Amino acid sequence: MMIVAKFGGSSLANAGQIKKVAAIIQGKPEIKAVVVSAPGKRFAEDIKVTDLLIALFDAVQAVGGQVGQVGHQTEALLQAEPVAEARQKVLDRYASILIELGLSTELLAYFEDTLNGYIADIQEPERLLDALKACGEDFNAQVVSHYLVSLGLDAHYVSPKEAGILVTDEPSNARLFDESYAQIAKLRDRAGVLIIPGFFGYSKGGDIVTFSRGGSDISGAIIANGLGADLYENYTDESFIYSMHPGKIARPHPIKEITYSEMRELSYAGFGIFHEEALEPVYRNDIPVMIRNTNQPEIKGTKIVSKKELDPRYPVTGVSSATGFTAISISKYLLNREMGFMRRAIRFFEEAGVPVEHVPSGIDSISLVIRSANIQSPEHLAGILATIQDKLNPDSIQVEDDLCIFAIVGEAMRENVGVAAAASRTFADNHINIRMISQGASEISMLFMIKAEDEDIALQGLYQAYFPREALATLAAAAQGE
Amino acid sequence: MMIVAKFGGSSLANAGQIKKVAAIIQGKPEIKAVVVSAPGKRFAEDIKVTDLLIALFDAVQAVGGQVGQVGHQTEALLQAEPVAEARQKVLDRYASILIELGLSTELLAYFEDTLNGYIADIQEPERLLDALKACGEDFNAQVVSHYLVSLGLDAHYVSPKEAGILVTDEPSNARLFDESYAQIAKLRDRAGVLIIPGFFGYSKGGDIVTFSRGGSDISGAIIANGLGADLYENYTDESFIYSMHPGKIARPHPIKEITYSEMRELSYAGFGIFHEEALEPVYRNDIPVMIRNTNQPEIKGTKIVSKKELDPRYPVTGVSSATGFTAISISKYLLNREMGFMRRAIRFFEEAGVPVEHVPSGIDSISLVIRSANIQSPEHLAGILATIQDKLNPDSIQVEDDLCIFAIVGEAMRENVGVAAAASRTFADNHINIRMISQGASEISMLFMIKAEDEDIALQGLYQAYFPREALATLAAAAQGE
Repeated sequence: MMIVAKFGGSSLANAGQIKKVAAIIQGKPEIKAVVVSAPGKRFAEDIKVTDLLIALFDAVQAVGGQVGQVGHQTEALLQAEPVAEARQKVLDRYASILIELGLSTELLAYFEDTLNGYIADIQEPERLLDALKACGEDFNAQVVSHYLVSLGLDAHYVSPKEAGILVTDEPSNARLFDESYAQIAKLRDRAGVLIIPGFFGYSKGGDIVTFSRGGSDISGAIIANGLGADLYENYTDESFIYSMHPGKIARPHPIKEITYSEMRELSYAGFGIFHEEALEPVYRNDIPVMIRNTNQPEIKGTKIVSKKELDPRYPVTGVSSATGFTAISISKYLLNREMGFMRRAIRFFEEAGVPVEHVPSGIDSISLVIRSANIQSPEHLAGILATIQDKLNPDSIQVEDDLCIFAIVGEAMRENVGVAAAASRTFADNHINIRMISQGASEISMLFMIKAEDEDIALQGLYQAYFPREALATLAAAAQGE
Repeated sequence: MMIVAKFGGSSLANAGQIKKVAAIIQGKPEIKAVVVSAPGKRFAEDIKVTDLLIALFDAVQAVGGQVGQVGHQTEALLQAEPVAEARQKVLDRYASILIELGLSTELLAYFEDTLNGYIADIQEPERLLDALKACGEDFNAQVVSHYLVSLGLDAHYVSPKEAGILVTDEPSNARLFDESYAQIAKLRDRAGVLIIPGFFGYSKGGDIVTFSRGGSDISGAIIANGLGADLYENYTDESFIYSMHPGKIARPHPIKEITYSEMRELSYAGFGIFHEEALEPVYRNDIPVMIRNTNQPEIKGTKIVSKKELDPRYPVTGVSSATGFTAISISKYLLNREMGFMRRAIRFFEEAGVPVEHVPSGIDSISLVIRSANIQSPEHLAGILATIQDKLNPDSIQVEDDLCIFAIVGEAMRENVGVAAAASRTFADNHINIRMISQGASEISMLFMIKAEDEDIALQGLYQAYFPREALATLAAAAQGE
């Protein structure tokens, strides 16, 4: 059993959290590699280290624009007050962590040299930004490694370069070169537990390049895949993915086991505790992911798997909902006979930079469902509609916004004939007009679109419809004043 | 009140039917123009005049290939036995009609000259075919006109050329030039009732060109529109459009009033008594269509209108179903983030000549619904799927055939929240697995796809669900042995 564990920013925000992380690693010799994020917020108003680093970059840009950045001017830049102040804030965070962990502060001088070196040497702003941002994870990995060694563990800091994480040269949007995996696999031969900073890799030219959103999750999945881990543990401050969004419904029950596909479908419409792109490397190689809570590591969290045993009594795994959708409905007599109509309508949206998410259709009408946020202005939409009117000559075009998509998700739905009936009955009983429905043959999900104003009542109703026992338990608990 | 009446082939198949038609015209002075089809079948094994004319064309082609068709050889062609025989069959049909109607047979010589003239003069096979086919309607209009005059009516045969029906020069697929309408409108100034052959028009070069499927219906709608009629009466041997297909369910009730859109949606999945393309001219100009039965003209048939008053107690107007659909389901992790995926998948089908009818979707999966008949061979489909695999790199492609689409149709559905619930409950109660659902925002129809083997039981169930009173009446009638 080999585990790769990834710890998020909240799990490493201060010395206390890092001690919990160390205890987890100490107690689990199966953990071969640990991927760390930068220190996150310690309290609501706190600033994440990554944001402190971005502030440092901004200070460098502001001052550098005045004094320049070459030769003897570099020294002026590094010592300019805004730069020094921003840098100090970064170093202070690590200083307090090192001190609280009882470690020597020698590392700080090295951290400062690293920051100054980047500022002095890297001319291109977007490359400098990537290099500075990467320091959050890079320094933290070194701190964690030092602390583990101080506890007597055979821990080793391994930089992404040493690990072999080769990425495309796209600042803030790196993608892995598959050839990296052969290199990463060699880490199996290394002794002890390896501490690897997340969020970035190296281009073939040797530059630091960061991943996009969910960066450390991506690194963790890459390392898990490269090492051929049996399990990828993802530690945050949550233990579970819930059957419904805990912020939208009282006490939804946690999901014990969920497939990648189910999670992906649920996260489309609103929730998910990490960026699902990040999981692609482990998804592709059937490595299960266990969600773990750093603060309650004894809880067996939600396990994400490729395949799971289906329980026909519970056809639905979860229900998610998301507002912010707009539907453009186009009708034309004999539309259905016009080959290419649907495709061209989609194209006019895509050419204007608006992805079309769903196209539920009747016979002579189609509805194009888009995210409202992708419409930049009324004129933007009007331009697309004018093109459609001009090129496709429809009888009518109608726009409906403030729509909410419900995704009813479950691998066991394909074995159950009553899922659609229960949903549509719930909507009907609550006098909610179903605006659109889309269900493809995959049958792992069913999408209902309703007015956003009906979202809450629909969620409550669907919870009762699909999880009657759990809904009753919630009511009973509420009656007892819990 | 001005009416344009169109009579179908079965309404004009013999003298007895033509007498019924004449009685209708005599009794209804509002009928300004009559559009006639060619004589249809008189009994099951009979041959329609149009098919006799096609046989004549085939004989000409066969013989002409041997003797040629120019100069003195023309005479040989016209007198060749196969040609003479085929021509005689056409003339015999009209002879028996004329004699039974008590009319002079002088017209026959003119008909024969017309046929011979076309055969002698028109070299291009597809133009000759069009000219010969058009004779079915053209001769019949002259017969009807003569008969009406013999009854003392002020009736006038008007050829499509005289009427001003100018069409594109596409043999067997003519489309009207809109400029024709100004010309057709002048027919209002003509006295008496005008008898116009359906099915064809004239190109700008003066050639006869026929319409495609539903040809005489197209002519009728064009004349109704051109004259600005208040009503377009379409006479066949049916009085109604039914709420469900009478061949598929016992005693469905007739629909009194249906909108064009409802009819179109219903006819998509299986039924409809004329080709709905034909109605486009009247649809576009809000001219209502009344379905009439030549054999029971006193029955007020189904009226097709642009708008109707909605009765929320009956949200569903009708339900139709059609088998012969195939769904190709494509899934790919993060598919939804890939702009253009759906559009490109549609394109690969369309480029192979296969129109995509619906695209119900989940988050990371889409299903493309096509008509199975458009797949020419297993290799044809395999080629498309190989392209999709190659260009879109999906995780899986699944093909499911023998699907049946149910269209639940009703303008009043948009006011009713329970329609989807009733359908999905019906499917669930009958243990029918819903394979796909598509409902766009137009809400006039809802499409469910199920396995074709479940079609009958689903139809029965839906009839009970949407028309409980009528279903009970049917049961009561059956109990009384009716």
